[in-house]
Amino acid sequence: MNDDVINFWLEVSDTIALNVENAIKNAASDPEVDTITKIGADGTPTHKIDEYAENAAIKTLESTGHSLILISEEIGTIKIGDDDPEIILIMDPLDGTTNALKQIPCYGISIAIAEIKDDKDINNITLGNIEIGFVKNFANEDTYIAVKNQGALKNNKKMSISNISNLSEATVCNYIYREDKERVNKLLSSIRRLRLIGAISIELCYVADGTYDAFLDTGSVRLLDIAAAQLILKENNGIVTDKLSNELSSQLDLMETTSIVAVANESIHKKIIDLIN
Amino acid sequence: MNDDVINFWLEVSDTIALNVENAIKNAASDPEVDTITKIGADGTPTHKIDEYAENAAIKTLESTGHSLILISEEIGTIKIGDDDPEIILIMDPLDGTTNALKQIPCYGISIAIAEIKDDKDINNITLGNIEIGFVKNFANEDTYIAVKNQGALKNNKKMSISNISNLSEATVCNYIYREDKERVNKLLSSIRRLRLIGAISIELCYVADGTYDAFLDTGSVRLLDIAAAQLILKENNGIVTDKLSNELSSQLDLMETTSIVAVANESIHKKIIDLIN
Repeated sequence: MNDDVINFWLEVSDTIALNVENAIKNAASDPEVDTITKIGADGTPTHKIDEYAENAAIKTLESTGHSLILISEEIGTIKIGDDDPEIILIMDPLDGTTNALKQIPCYGISIAIAEIKDDKDINNITLGNIEIGFVKNFANEDTYIAVKNQGALKNNKKMSISNISNLSEATVCNYIYREDKERVNKLLSSIRRLRLIGAISIELCYVADGTYDAFLDTGSVRLLDIAAAQLILKENNGIVTDKLSNELSSQLDLMETTSIVAVANESIHKKIIDLIN
Repeated sequence: MNDDVINFWLEVSDTIALNVENAIKNAASDPEVDTITKIGADGTPTHKIDEYAENAAIKTLESTGHSLILISEEIGTIKIGDDDPEIILIMDPLDGTTNALKQIPCYGISIAIAEIKDDKDINNITLGNIEIGFVKNFANEDTYIAVKNQGALKNNKKMSISNISNLSEATVCNYIYREDKERVNKLLSSIRRLRLIGAISIELCYVADGTYDAFLDTGSVRLLDIAAAQLILKENNGIVTDKLSNELSSQLDLMETTSIVAVANESIHKKIIDLIN
């Protein structure tokens, strides 16, 4: 992507986020906002608030006049526009639905974009092809962006990633209740503190900005929750692998999942990989 | 306590909270705000930000002209004023120090007050004698208060506690990394979701206002972190016991700890007690 194209899609991401945020605020007056309306395309329950969010995002994308493939939590994979698609956009319109409903101040949007260079290649586009990552926490307006090979910013400023090298000082995010507990119990006994707030894309960005030292899920996390934040973290010199220390290379797909070990530096990465394997 | 006395100490609590909050905001410009300055009276590390917070609180208490016993995290147990003490005030001036330093939006103050009816009884005053509970989240200004036998309020309004009766739907807060993991693993496999944000007094209030369905610590939690919130939860019809289902009755003391199972209703309480025992 050239700079003009990158800037265009960054602006679109910003507009999507604003429109989704407004849709959620308006949705608060709907007494049924927290009801489950259906099972989304990804197989998890859709709350009415998720529909408000996704509809606002789709409407914004339709208004751009550009053609694209959208992969999103509730609607699944759809084509927008009549021409050949220029990009794949993989999105969780509202990451942290429960937090949004309960007013736990950590919920927002995750948008990741990969260019489609050749129509025949669509099925070969992977996480490694993501060129733009955009994550916004609606509760406090913190906005994280990254462009491949150009770095990452939080609220338009550089971020300081953690340089802690000992697990005994580390703040780690781990969705322990969904995990193979045997695998992580030893790790949990070695760290300084655990955090688990409930919005994966934002908590991955917390590794990029030094709030956390590590985020891990040795089970399965959905690509749509990590696609943007993994680039943000890598572009701020963080390390992102699966639980076996392999690079993440899953194909961009709604149902695709992976394990993830996302950390601030090599030293912490090695120690976590050793403890969980 | 009569209503005038209660209202006086509620106003003092409000003023302490405002002054501590301002002190923390001002402290942000101190480059050493996150350094550990000593080991506090409670045996845990004191950060400079904790000192700013506690000093602001003590100054406010000294200005009331009333005499009291203060139990606080860094300074320990001290007498304020020259007359016979009227109350015991047990306080964590900054619960969630790490969150405050990292800007995770969940940190604040916890203040609990018990009347001293007879000087000779000071050593017999327990958690059950707390008459006023005050907890404020500085990150979003949410303020929880309770007066014994008179109910609890959040931001001056009534709160809705959860009526969920199945663990499979429950949101539970548990500091798993500090726990006997064998004891809680079965529980963690039975719940809907785990949360762990890192400010115990506020997360106990999250049970009172329906954000969480349960909070538990089967190990040891310090009285000064739960003294205010346990009253707030009980006054909103929640249930608070230790891990064996006994009422909490520890003496008000800096070093005193207890296990805690703090939940929204009888049904969830029974299910958790069964699973952890």
